[in-house]
Amino acid sequence: MKEEQIVQQVMEEVRKQMGSAGTDKFVPNRGGTFTEFVGTAFGDTVGLVIAHVDPVIHEKLGIDPKYKSLGILGARTGAGPQLMAADEAVKASNSEVVLLEMPRDTKGNGGHGCLLLFGAEEVSDARRAVEIALKNLEYLFGDIYMNEAGFIELQYTARASYALNKYMGAPLGKAWGLIVGCPAGAGVLMADAAVKAANVEIVNFASPARGTSHSNEFMIMISGDSGAVKQAVIAGREMGLKVLGTMGEVPQSLQVPYIK
Amino acid sequence: MKEEQIVQQVMEEVRKQMGSAGTDKFVPNRGGTFTEFVGTAFGDTVGLVIAHVDPVIHEKLGIDPKYKSLGILGARTGAGPQLMAADEAVKASNSEVVLLEMPRDTKGNGGHGCLLLFGAEEVSDARRAVEIALKNLEYLFGDIYMNEAGFIELQYTARASYALNKYMGAPLGKAWGLIVGCPAGAGVLMADAAVKAANVEIVNFASPARGTSHSNEFMIMISGDSGAVKQAVIAGREMGLKVLGTMGEVPQSLQVPYIK
Amino acid sequence: MKEEQIVQQVMEEVRKQMGSAGTDKFVPNRGGTFTEFVGTAFGDTVGLVIAHVDPVIHEKLGIDPKYKSLGILGARTGAGPQLMAADEAVKASNSEVVLLEMPRDTKGNGGHGCLLLFGAEEVSDARRAVEIALKNLEYLFGDIYMNEAGFIELQYTARASYALNKYMGAPLGKAWGLIVGCPAGAGVLMADAAVKAANVEIVNFASPARGTSHSNEFMIMISGDSGAVKQAVIAGREMGLKVLGTMGEVPQSLQVPYIK
Repeated sequence: MKEEQIVQQVMEEVRKQMGSAGTDKFVPNRGGTFTEFVGTAFGDTVGLVIAHVDPVIHEKLGIDPKYKSLGILGARTGAGPQLMAADEAVKASNSEVVLLEMPRDTKGNGGHGCLLLFGAEEVSDARRAVEIALKNLEYLFGDIYMNEAGFIELQYTARASYALNKYMGAPLGKAWGLIVGCPAGAGVLMADAAVKAANVEIVNFASPARGTSHSNEFMIMISGDSGAVKQAVIAGREMGLKVLGTMGEVPQSLQVPYIK
Repeated sequence: MKEEQIVQQVMEEVRKQMGSAGTDKFVPNRGGTFTEFVGTAFGDTVGLVIAHVDPVIHEKLGIDPKYKSLGILGARTGAGPQLMAADEAVKASNSEVVLLEMPRDTKGNGGHGCLLLFGAEEVSDARRAVEIALKNLEYLFGDIYMNEAGFIELQYTARASYALNKYMGAPLGKAWGLIVGCPAGAGVLMADAAVKAANVEIVNFASPARGTSHSNEFMIMISGDSGAVKQAVIAGREMGLKVLGTMGEVPQSLQVPYIK
Repeated sequence: MKEEQIVQQVMEEVRKQMGSAGTDKFVPNRGGTFTEFVGTAFGDTVGLVIAHVDPVIHEKLGIDPKYKSLGILGARTGAGPQLMAADEAVKASNSEVVLLEMPRDTKGNGGHGCLLLFGAEEVSDARRAVEIALKNLEYLFGDIYMNEAGFIELQYTARASYALNKYMGAPLGKAWGLIVGCPAGAGVLMADAAVKAANVEIVNFASPARGTSHSNEFMIMISGDSGAVKQAVIAGREMGLKVLGTMGEVPQSLQVPYIK
């Protein structure tokens, strides 16, 4: 192994630790089994479940006590992917997203992390919601592209469900897209390119001082005809890749792009 | 030295720089002596003192002008340890904590840093408060455990004093405990385990959107009988170590655990 | 290449990626040319321009629609340097700063990043504003000094213009100075030293909980006679270098110091 290779190998290791790394797939636990553990996934995401939550926790968090069981997603990197994953999970399980908070994290990168709670009346439903969400995280980092200068994130769904509706103002059952750029200046250009590319409505936007936890992101969330939303998201992605590409290496997808 | 060893050595160095590093002990200054300097300690903590603060600083910060002298603790990593350290310091010196602010920091990790000011009428008291606090930091990172995915923090005191009372709502003279998990999802599970383990009261809690500076932490602060508080803290720690252990390597204490 | 050299080289690379790095100078794009691209500069700063902004972007951002063109500065590290750079740019171009937001960023370090928008009626003016600002960034990181524990930042101008007036309360046409320390405790001492050194007025201050986006900084902004402002800034710098020097290696300027 040559010196340069050593340096490269170490830098890769460092990037993994700094960036939105964590395990690649929904994997069984490494630290021994315990009742509350469901699994881990990309973005340093951990999935947990509490069968009978202590009432004082309900009370402090303002969660309806009928949800005796809680499913938990905690992540160092994300929010977008986890919320999308949860939106699918509530379609397929008898649960509701009862809390979404976005710490300023990504382990030194410019975005958020995620605390998301599912409420369910039965522990099996809470567990199932977490399992589906973790499984979905196998593809939802696919349209996040990074290099040493920043990242862009794109998300798309043909039918927004309850979680996206509740926390992001997405019209129920309609196509919804997310267009994010970091640093935020890249996101402004991506947003402009997206809304010019197709006839879509901006249902939400966020910037470092408005609607984020001071992350270095500018983002819009769009709704409309599914073809138009996808076209706008793709236009935003093209512009974002161009901008980020001027600031550093060619941006790489964290998984496999899924928006086509 | 084999290549793998080199890589390991470098990664250790990187972790030190990224994590809650800084000097291990309360050490004398490396950069030459100057009047205002008291010392440095773990968590990139610096202790300073101003004998006669300019009145405009009092006015801007809203500090009672009778406190002509200020003791300063600045840190990149912490808040919990420094506030605990200060709580002991005010017991043993004629000073008061007059400001506590928690930047979102930890050098890329998921927690806070700390800006803490002691007010005193005499510079000797301000200096003494800072000295005691720095000295206490030799053990107060002992129940912080980290790995590449996050960290957990536990604190315990048999008798909370004025600083914990003023800033964290701890009942004066009673046992008090702090239970923190990062990512926040880990903290929710730790909190639930803690309150189930013993009869304690939650006197304060914080989450990424409530009571933190958007850190990726969920934390509860508990009060009650000293045995119960300790039991709850230890139950939270056990659960936290399990969760964090599923996300990466076995979590390591930053110093020597002190809660037994 | 010896092992130690390898380790050193890697650490340098890591520091570059973690710190307020990015390209050193206003450079042409690396990622191919596109209409909206102006250039990149220090602090992972990118300069962009939109000739005809979509009206929905104006509306969401609350920007006067007469500014059909927007110039964009996005950065992972800064705010101080970019705002100073923009203040010069608006003097020399027919444009106005219409938005300044400060994400909590610096890629894991303790400060901000920057989103700054110039509004202009003509695209040539927006482009010119961005070009001048990027060019100015070649020296405005000169009085930022870093080591592994934190950083200090100093800025000075003999004549504050519209951008500093609008966003930082700087009296128009008068000398203005910025004194920042990270961790914030260092900044408190720097501020005290600065106001004692010369007869200046504090026109603004910020701390982790007040006026920052929870960065680990304490800063004052001062105005007054140009000689006095410069003297105070230099006194703050001296104190800051001393404090930071006790916490780690000798702090290094990120470029070439310009305040003399």
